[in-house]
Amino acid sequence: MLKPLAVLNKAINQQVIVELKGKRGYRGTLDGYDPHMNLVLRNAEEILDAKVTRKMDAIIVRGDNVIYISP
Amino acid sequence: MLKPLAVLNKAINQQVIVELKGKRGYRGTLDGYDPHMNLVLRNAEEILDAKVTRKMDAIIVRGDNVIYISP
Amino acid sequence: MLKPLAVLNKAINQQVIVELKGKRGYRGTLDGYDPHMNLVLRNAEEILDAKVTRKMDAIIVRGDNVIYISP
Amino acid sequence: MLKPLAVLNKAINQQVIVELKGKRGYRGTLDGYDPHMNLVLRNAEEILDAKVTRKMDAIIVRGDNVIYISP
Amino acid sequence: MLKPLAVLNKAINQQVIVELKGKRGYRGTLDGYDPHMNLVLRNAEEILDAKVTRKMDAIIVRGDNVIYISP
Amino acid sequence: MLKPLAVLNKAINQQVIVELKGKRGYRGTLDGYDPHMNLVLRNAEEILDAKVTRKMDAIIVRGDNVIYISP
Amino acid sequence: MLKPLAVLNKAINQQVIVELKGKRGYRGTLDGYDPHMNLVLRNAEEILDAKVTRKMDAIIVRGDNVIYISP
Repeated sequence: MLKPLAVLNKAINQQVIVELKGKRGYRGTLDGYDPHMNLVLRNAEEILDAKVTRKMDAIIVRGDNVIYISP
Repeated sequence: MLKPLAVLNKAINQQVIVELKGKRGYRGTLDGYDPHMNLVLRNAEEILDAKVTRKMDAIIVRGDNVIYISP
Repeated sequence: MLKPLAVLNKAINQQVIVELKGKRGYRGTLDGYDPHMNLVLRNAEEILDAKVTRKMDAIIVRGDNVIYISP
Repeated sequence: MLKPLAVLNKAINQQVIVELKGKRGYRGTLDGYDPHMNLVLRNAEEILDAKVTRKMDAIIVRGDNVIYISP
Repeated sequence: MLKPLAVLNKAINQQVIVELKGKRGYRGTLDGYDPHMNLVLRNAEEILDAKVTRKMDAIIVRGDNVIYISP
Repeated sequence: MLKPLAVLNKAINQQVIVELKGKRGYRGTLDGYDPHMNLVLRNAEEILDAKVTRKMDAIIVRGDNVIYISP
Repeated sequence: MLKPLAVLNKAINQQVIVELKGKRGYRGTLDGYDPHMNLVLRNAEEILDAKVTRKMDAIIVRGDNVIYISP
């Protein structure tokens, strides 16, 4: 049995895809997280309707809006 | 009497269907969960309007958006 | 005076109707619940706009989306 | 000074009107409540757009969706 | 410095206006409140689009939907 | 480092602008607040689409709907 | 591993971009934050649809509406 936060922990320093409400997605290297599923991504790309719309060195994504995280 | 989390626990390593708000569904093998109903699925498929739209080795689905889980 | 959870408890093993936000309903035998009103139904039917749209051996319905439960 | 839950308590066994989000209303005899304003109504009627659309022996109405309760 | 609940407390037995989400308003004499801003109003009037649409001897208004209260 | 509530505290007795969800704004003198960012404003003006639509001696604005507060 | 709040802490006195629900963005110097991700920005600019629509000496942005923060 794998707890969701344990899966996040194993994904540290790996590429993850984060799907949010409102058709937004973020792709980047997982630098950290907290128990609310707030995430830190580095070398992040914002994806709207399957297109990269923004690139950012680092972002903090609020966990509230997460639909799923794919390590 | 079966507590919801006990039912999830018995479904570990079994195929589950997860219906989310916004007409999204996920199908996969349940690898884990936590008390917020955050779920870990492996060999997951995303289903939008009855079509498989994405396949992912593993996803963490946030419990907030769950409508129902069918083991 | 009847506490809501006590009414749920008396409905165990009985047929219940669960009305959710978004015009969804579920009908089935109540197998369990927790204090968040997450429910376990067996022999469940999904009802959308008064039509049975799905049958499932068992589902966990998240309490967040419940409008009412009728035992 | 009348605390909201004390007013609910005095309304036990009396007819109440419960207005919910989404233009739904319920009318029935208040059988019970809890601190989340989850309510138990017996001989309940559902009212949509000022018409009685359903009658139920008993319902548990989730407090989350309540706009107001009129004893 | 006036804490919001202290202002509510001073408004007991006075006429208040309560503006809710969804263009609803209530006007009445404040009979009570709790820390969630659930309110008890007596001689209450419901106001939709600047018209009085309902009169009620007493209502419990759920604090969740409050935008503002004007004593 | 300035904690948000400390900034609110320094704004007591000063004019503030409060922007809420749903294109509503309030302008007034900050009389108080609590840890939920519920606010007390005196000599308050409601602003909808850049027009003053209402004036009130005092209002309690619920913190839930706040987007930002500008001291 | 970088906790989200630790990343915010390192961004104190630096320029940040805050993306909110509803196509709103704020840009400014991070003066402070709290564990709810409520933020204090100075020399803040509001950005709607990629245009600067307002400039404010200081704002408190409520964490609830945050989608991401980019230091």
